Amino acid sequence: MNSSYQMTLENPFSNQEKKEQERQAKRDAVLLAAVKIFNQQGFHSTSLDDVAQSLGISKPTIYHYLGNKEQVLLTCVEIGLQQLIEAAKDVEKQSISGFEKLRSFLFLYGCRNLDDFGRCVILTSDDALSKEGLAKFKALKRIVHQALLKIIQDAQADQSIRREYDAKILAATLTGAINWSAKWYDPQGALSKEETVQKMVDILTYGFEKK
Amino acid sequence: MNSSYQMTLENPFSNQEKKEQERQAKRDAVLLAAVKIFNQQGFHSTSLDDVAQSLGISKPTIYHYLGNKEQVLLTCVEIGLQQLIEAAKDVEKQSISGFEKLRSFLFLYGCRNLDDFGRCVILTSDDALSKEGLAKFKALKRIVHQALLKIIQDAQADQSIRREYDAKILAATLTGAINWSAKWYDPQGALSKEETVQKMVDILTYGFEKK
Repeated sequence: MNSSYQMTLENPFSNQEKKEQERQAKRDAVLLAAVKIFNQQGFHSTSLDDVAQSLGISKPTIYHYLGNKEQVLLTCVEIGLQQLIEAAKDVEKQSISGFEKLRSFLFLYGCRNLDDFGRCVILTSDDALSKEGLAKFKALKRIVHQALLKIIQDAQADQSIRREYDAKILAATLTGAINWSAKWYDPQGALSKEETVQKMVDILTYGFEKK
Repeated sequence: MNSSYQMTLENPFSNQEKKEQERQAKRDAVLLAAVKIFNQQGFHSTSLDDVAQSLGISKPTIYHYLGNKEQVLLTCVEIGLQQLIEAAKDVEKQSISGFEKLRSFLFLYGCRNLDDFGRCVILTSDDALSKEGLAKFKALKRIVHQALLKIIQDAQADQSIRREYDAKILAATLTGAINWSAKWYDPQGALSKEETVQKMVDILTYGFEKK
């Protein structure tokens, strides 16, 4: 009786907020389950039944929260790419040399790429997406690429990195090296994600030529 | 009459050889058509009908020369990987320092990777293959990886490259950077394959740190 009385006194707006939080938590749980299965089995070999089963829910529940399989994938890669866009913004705010900004961005970029959503970005091939989906995917990738290009150009301008390299080829070579680790990094191995990424960033910074 | 007479005099063994050459030429034509379409459309979005149509032949003709779609793909990636194995053998024969061998291999590796069959190796994701196909694919990739690892270890042993890097992470970082170019290199762009690969190899050799 007492508790029911309390309930009627609850602010209906915060109740609304709580519902929204619950909805969000359920949506996040579906996304996390989906991204792990996509990464493990590959998008083409995964059905939403697998995802639903892993959470003990029905497929229509997934449709309700996120839409069809492509929409689920698209949301996963959007999260992954958004993390990289945020990383670039964080780095740009720092008062450090262009050289240090580039190293700092590459480190964050590498760590995000070895997360579930980052790996999904790397492992998603263009032919997994519809024309519209692919356009969105490419637009977000372009923002990340432009952000890196700006970091490189600024570092060449402040003369804190070598200036003889073509900025676009440098950007593609650096990100390529790091992207590929989403395919070979073993989370069960001896090195943490951060240690592995740091070693890659050092190789890319200093090269293999003996000093 | 005369020509028919000549025909009967032809060496039946060389005739056999000619037939085999023709068979081989037809098989090669199917493979080249297939690999170009796989690279362009993606394996999952390609049907053998597309390949057959592009050559003006029937699908059963493809089955006859190569087998089903997976077998066609597997033959394409085997050709691509075999090129890399040959490149490593060629480099090993040369009398140059470990540093030069590594640079030389990376250059050949990069150029092969931007060929039709090399690109197919990079663009083929594991989930395109059956368990048996994937095992073959991985076994060939392992031979290439081991060959590169040996080149790196020899170069560290003869002290012609930096010795502080972990050889496995160095191998993965170098090949990752180069592999990724199969995704971004534009054959219609200003730079040739060889020029692009040379620039990547220089970046990986010297790093971006300013001297």
